[in-house]
Amino acid sequence: MSVTAEPAQRRRGGRNARKALRSAPLADDIKPVWPGMQSDRYRALSVLDMDNIHAAILDTLETIGLADAIPSCIEAVTRAGGFLNEKGRLCFPRALIEDTIASANRTFSIYGQTPTHDLEPIGNKVYFGTGGAAVHIVDPVSGEYRESNLQDLYEMARIVDVMDHIHYFQRPIVARDMTGGFDLDVNTAYASLSGTTKHVGTSFVSPESVKATLEMLHVIAGDEKSWRQRPFLSQSNCFVVPPLKFAVDACHCLEAAVYGGMPVLLLSAGQAGATAPAALATTIIQAWAEVLAGLTYVNALKPDAVAICGPWPFVSDLRTGAMSGGSGEQALLMAACGQMGGYYDLTTGVASAMTDAKMPDAQAGYEKGYNHALVGNSGANMIYESAGMHASLLGACKESLVIDNDLIGAVQRTVRGIDVSVDTLSIEGIREVCEQGPGHYLGQPQTLDLMERDYVYPDLADRSTPKEWEELGKPVLLDKAVEKTREIIDNHFPAHISEQKDAKIRAMLDIKLPRKTMQAKL
Amino acid sequence: MSVTAEPAQRRRGGRNARKALRSAPLADDIKPVWPGMQSDRYRALSVLDMDNIHAAILDTLETIGLADAIPSCIEAVTRAGGFLNEKGRLCFPRALIEDTIASANRTFSIYGQTPTHDLEPIGNKVYFGTGGAAVHIVDPVSGEYRESNLQDLYEMARIVDVMDHIHYFQRPIVARDMTGGFDLDVNTAYASLSGTTKHVGTSFVSPESVKATLEMLHVIAGDEKSWRQRPFLSQSNCFVVPPLKFAVDACHCLEAAVYGGMPVLLLSAGQAGATAPAALATTIIQAWAEVLAGLTYVNALKPDAVAICGPWPFVSDLRTGAMSGGSGEQALLMAACGQMGGYYDLTTGVASAMTDAKMPDAQAGYEKGYNHALVGNSGANMIYESAGMHASLLGACKESLVIDNDLIGAVQRTVRGIDVSVDTLSIEGIREVCEQGPGHYLGQPQTLDLMERDYVYPDLADRSTPKEWEELGKPVLLDKAVEKTREIIDNHFPAHISEQKDAKIRAMLDIKLPRKTMQAKL
Repeated sequence: MSVTAEPAQRRRGGRNARKALRSAPLADDIKPVWPGMQSDRYRALSVLDMDNIHAAILDTLETIGLADAIPSCIEAVTRAGGFLNEKGRLCFPRALIEDTIASANRTFSIYGQTPTHDLEPIGNKVYFGTGGAAVHIVDPVSGEYRESNLQDLYEMARIVDVMDHIHYFQRPIVARDMTGGFDLDVNTAYASLSGTTKHVGTSFVSPESVKATLEMLHVIAGDEKSWRQRPFLSQSNCFVVPPLKFAVDACHCLEAAVYGGMPVLLLSAGQAGATAPAALATTIIQAWAEVLAGLTYVNALKPDAVAICGPWPFVSDLRTGAMSGGSGEQALLMAACGQMGGYYDLTTGVASAMTDAKMPDAQAGYEKGYNHALVGNSGANMIYESAGMHASLLGACKESLVIDNDLIGAVQRTVRGIDVSVDTLSIEGIREVCEQGPGHYLGQPQTLDLMERDYVYPDLADRSTPKEWEELGKPVLLDKAVEKTREIIDNHFPAHISEQKDAKIRAMLDIKLPRKTMQAKL
Repeated sequence: MSVTAEPAQRRRGGRNARKALRSAPLADDIKPVWPGMQSDRYRALSVLDMDNIHAAILDTLETIGLADAIPSCIEAVTRAGGFLNEKGRLCFPRALIEDTIASANRTFSIYGQTPTHDLEPIGNKVYFGTGGAAVHIVDPVSGEYRESNLQDLYEMARIVDVMDHIHYFQRPIVARDMTGGFDLDVNTAYASLSGTTKHVGTSFVSPESVKATLEMLHVIAGDEKSWRQRPFLSQSNCFVVPPLKFAVDACHCLEAAVYGGMPVLLLSAGQAGATAPAALATTIIQAWAEVLAGLTYVNALKPDAVAICGPWPFVSDLRTGAMSGGSGEQALLMAACGQMGGYYDLTTGVASAMTDAKMPDAQAGYEKGYNHALVGNSGANMIYESAGMHASLLGACKESLVIDNDLIGAVQRTVRGIDVSVDTLSIEGIREVCEQGPGHYLGQPQTLDLMERDYVYPDLADRSTPKEWEELGKPVLLDKAVEKTREIIDNHFPAHISEQKDAKIRAMLDIKLPRKTMQAKL
């Protein structure tokens, strides 16, 4: 049976109960898709391929190593068994990497701000979320790219908060109205946390802003202990500048996160043909070598550190050197990196749906579609950048969040897979329809039973016939997305952070998001 | 090594020779993708799932069988070992089906009108082509659906003729300006054959029109023997009305094709939740049971008959009963049916990219994208409906043919897969860049070498930066598609059928396509 195993409580309730529910919103236990289903049914690499890639990764780490390690990193890693070679590069012997792979924490949860949004990125369970650091907001109505700001970020968080198929919120944009890295970091965390009850991911430019944000997180959680029990914000950290060089500032932020109980996403974001090799297989080697160096580093700092492996090799258009996040090559790279995560049984997050298209047009759709289909079925645990992104991550679009939510729902259906079981292998339904009539399955009990348990219905996507579509005035997808987005922005304001806590945060930190913009207009 | 094995001649010529070619169109031997690559890397079903489904298929054929077999079918199939049961249904014992699977012809070529377009749908080689019977032409500029006609068909054939990634032309539309089935059939064949040099697929309403078309095919080929040596037109045949009932007229057409040396596509086009079971696995059982009945039938008529298995279960939106060709459920069904074709090692064609969207918008893109990614990597040999279709096959769009060509190119790149080989497993390039500088791969020999051999570049899709895009005046994908389509329609007229042969055909048959419309305007 290919289907994701379902928790027992999902099957409670008889058919009549479900029939009665059909006109109401679906109860959680009969939804056709749900967060954390499992699939590794797309296999970009064979097992032999992965064995060979793994061997090359071990060679790379032992004989090439990484440049520019900071003293605390050298100290921790050499204590664990690493060494500085004659070129001053920090090298990782095979046994050290193998020990890290064997012992790394791979059974942690990624917590929501509310428990309904907790994620368990274990085995091949997969979750879709946002991500990125776009510097533009895409306005698909005017066709403009404009600078992104803090209000945009807050609005995107609020949109994601109500999207069924977007399971966590990593900040997709840079708030360019912030001045200075400290203000940017704390306000990015604040606006994201206030806008959604789901897990939040963000990045930091300095250990000082990590520490200030940790204080805010303690306030929100109640105290430090409560924060450490359910850390609901993770740090996206580019600890490496590919090829194979540590990023000094990022390493300091990484250490602050590890010691502060903040989960980290260990990002290696090379670009094949530029900062990574043009050959896809060699780029996978470099990316996973870098990530395993980072994983060894954080485990040397603190055994059982909560870390998500982030091998994110991007693709160059080799004619121009520019990134091409929507390409078929990109789908192959990310799917293979996700699959290697399954090979190691390490919690792994990759990126998908980074279209090159500037607007939510057919190109944006198909590039996101084929990337999600393959990456989503690769066995990766977390799919970042999965909604709202354009222009190879340079632009983010609010309306695309709601368009892409439908896409992810459909791809989630493929992740769930086909239920091959005693029930569905029975041909008695076929026999009855053929031999006793009526010659079709429209009114069959099974058809009614599966209508909402097995079939996903999109929110905005159009399924009318051409005739119905004309009668409806030829609805345009983008118009529906604009309307839905506006409705959410105007009305949806999560209130999970109390006014008292909010006041405490504002007393501690210079919060730039005006309190009066954080509620619906009367 | 996951990559598709390449013919030896693809690797001739050194790197310098390839570098010199970079500004010129690519020679065939260094293209990054090519027709007939292989992939079965997406596995919707486990081997156990397929064993169980196969067992249920055998049960269905032996104990339920098919209704409404015509006398010649009953005669041929019972002679081969089948029997009529007490309900008058034609049943196929397990041994008969197993014999058919074991002995069916699976090594035939599907011929182009010119040999450059010959296809070899063998093993897991995959080809993308059109298909369908849309009754509307979609005008994406005016937003209109209008009746499709013969000129539209001729134009679509001519567009497909120059699309690199669309490998054959099955007629996508019904020429609604034809009166009567005979005129429709011969003119559809004529307009398709005249418009492209690639393989043509079409369907027929009566054996008489099959026979008349065969005469036309003999003229084009030179004589009957030449036609039978390289049959370049195949018959798409819905020999079954699901569930499990023979279609009488279609069976007569099927027999005319088999005896006339015309390859057949044995189509079972049920709709899950309507004419097929709502449970996806059970629908796969019914669809493949029907197709194997058809395969047994044609092999009973003529051993070694050239037949493509066409298990095409569509999906219902169960809320309305309408077809939803773009859904995630649809991707699962077609991919699983394609995979079953690999299980049987039978030449198998399925359908993909049948979006529900009315226009080439983001929905059209993403639905086509995820369907192609999964179905294209399922192991199916022929992917029909793969370009130009809308509204769950009710509309066809010329501009979408050129948009979808880029999509298929990218998906083809995923079909080719990742080259994991001695060369790409070598870390010496990484070592050199890291230890000796320059710290990036932009000028590396491997990067230049792989620039066009490993990376696919789209024709219309936009990869500019937001800044470049603004400087270019914000080009719109659809505008580019409209322009490209117009250019082809105005200028591309294949002339592979001589004037003399054309005159002979026009003397035999009432050809409605005016000769004067078959050349560029001066």
